[in-house]
Amino acid sequence: MNIILLERQELILNTVLLTDRRANHLVKVLQVSSGDSVRIGIIDGPQGFGTVTEICRHYPFQVRLEVQFPEEIKQDPEEKPFIDLLLALPRPIMLRRIFSQAAALGVENIFITHAQRVEKSFWNATLLNEEEYRPHLLQGLEQAVDTRVPKIHIHERFKPFIEDVLPEKARDYSHLLIAHPDSIAPLKNVILEKPEKILVAIGPEGGWIDYEMERFAESGFLAFSLGKRILKVDTAVIAIHGRLSERRDSFTF
Amino acid sequence: MNIILLERQELILNTVLLTDRRANHLVKVLQVSSGDSVRIGIIDGPQGFGTVTEICRHYPFQVRLEVQFPEEIKQDPEEKPFIDLLLALPRPIMLRRIFSQAAALGVENIFITHAQRVEKSFWNATLLNEEEYRPHLLQGLEQAVDTRVPKIHIHERFKPFIEDVLPEKARDYSHLLIAHPDSIAPLKNVILEKPEKILVAIGPEGGWIDYEMERFAESGFLAFSLGKRILKVDTAVIAIHGRLSERRDSFTF
Repeated sequence: MNIILLERQELILNTVLLTDRRANHLVKVLQVSSGDSVRIGIIDGPQGFGTVTEICRHYPFQVRLEVQFPEEIKQDPEEKPFIDLLLALPRPIMLRRIFSQAAALGVENIFITHAQRVEKSFWNATLLNEEEYRPHLLQGLEQAVDTRVPKIHIHERFKPFIEDVLPEKARDYSHLLIAHPDSIAPLKNVILEKPEKILVAIGPEGGWIDYEMERFAESGFLAFSLGKRILKVDTAVIAIHGRLSERRDSFTF
Repeated sequence: MNIILLERQELILNTVLLTDRRANHLVKVLQVSSGDSVRIGIIDGPQGFGTVTEICRHYPFQVRLEVQFPEEIKQDPEEKPFIDLLLALPRPIMLRRIFSQAAALGVENIFITHAQRVEKSFWNATLLNEEEYRPHLLQGLEQAVDTRVPKIHIHERFKPFIEDVLPEKARDYSHLLIAHPDSIAPLKNVILEKPEKILVAIGPEGGWIDYEMERFAESGFLAFSLGKRILKVDTAVIAIHGRLSERRDSFTF
């Protein structure tokens, strides 16, 4: 936990009383004392510092912080995530990891839809409820020191999603990309200028079927390949995020 | 399991009898029939095809394969991994994931050493024994369809490693790099020509200490930064592998 994240409504004037795993972390891991300062952030809001004003070191742990938001740690707009993900619903154990890892790497939106090779039972996962997935997103932000929670958009039916929802969303992007092992285009052939905002589609285990690839192509997605190695979806998400970030860096001076 | 990996000594003439989780996979997941062909590979050897000649579908499962190694699936030397990892020993649960993910992404060598911020108890992990870690490496290869097992080099003491072992190894690399959040150099500033072979050092949770950074600098390592976000080591390994791969691709035509 490299930043303590607070819900806005937890703040009373400029103080907050922590009693949960965040208090536990401050007392047991960071072993803070009264007067110490720790990094804090309001979820989907500014970052700042919290000064420990009261502390109970016995279980149940409690820590009271007085918070400040100095001007100088305003976030750099250049660091706003420029990658959105479009995933065929992965198996829940993998999706959980993807939520926290994607939040850590920085993405603004994650679209989740169906695909032929997605097991139908995955749609029953409790993880698809916000109260279940939000903690995993927050964990990623706590790791990476960010406050911007990725927005999750769940569209269980592929056809209405790609025909009715995606065309409007697509306008927000400079690049619509789809990872596909059959493609022979490396990333650099589909990103020819600095990407402002990328939506990248990543298929299920076994890949998208031809019908799905055609629908994506019709929607303006360009296929690219990462080479012949077949990666698990969670590994692919991170590797692709790294590659897109590096490709974007190549256009800055 | 996208390829069935065989130890060379399992082959009797050109047949092999599988009785373990590979037989289980063929019978239960792939549901092969007699005459079917599956992708196989000799560990640290060639890839080929196995034709099912006998099959027992009842527990304990057995599958006999007759194997062939056609000329046409010789591996492309361009695809030989060009990245080696140098890691401060991560916690075992994370190291296990790194072993399989690094094998899936493709690395040739993984050096593991100590650092000030590595918990001493991690060195007691049974995972540091070859019979424990090898299955995780093979899992990654089975996923990615490769036969080349990454070589693991364990050097428990940092100083002898960096002073006595590393200087000789360093000659094998075109680039010696170290990921460090305090650096302001993006990757593209430390990789100015097509990398033939990269050794990239990735620190422990909390990072390398100044003393360690100085020793790496003396050994010729150039520091680079991935930005301000703090990543877990296992996420960082994949993200850095992706960035290095993309950077290298930028030099090919």
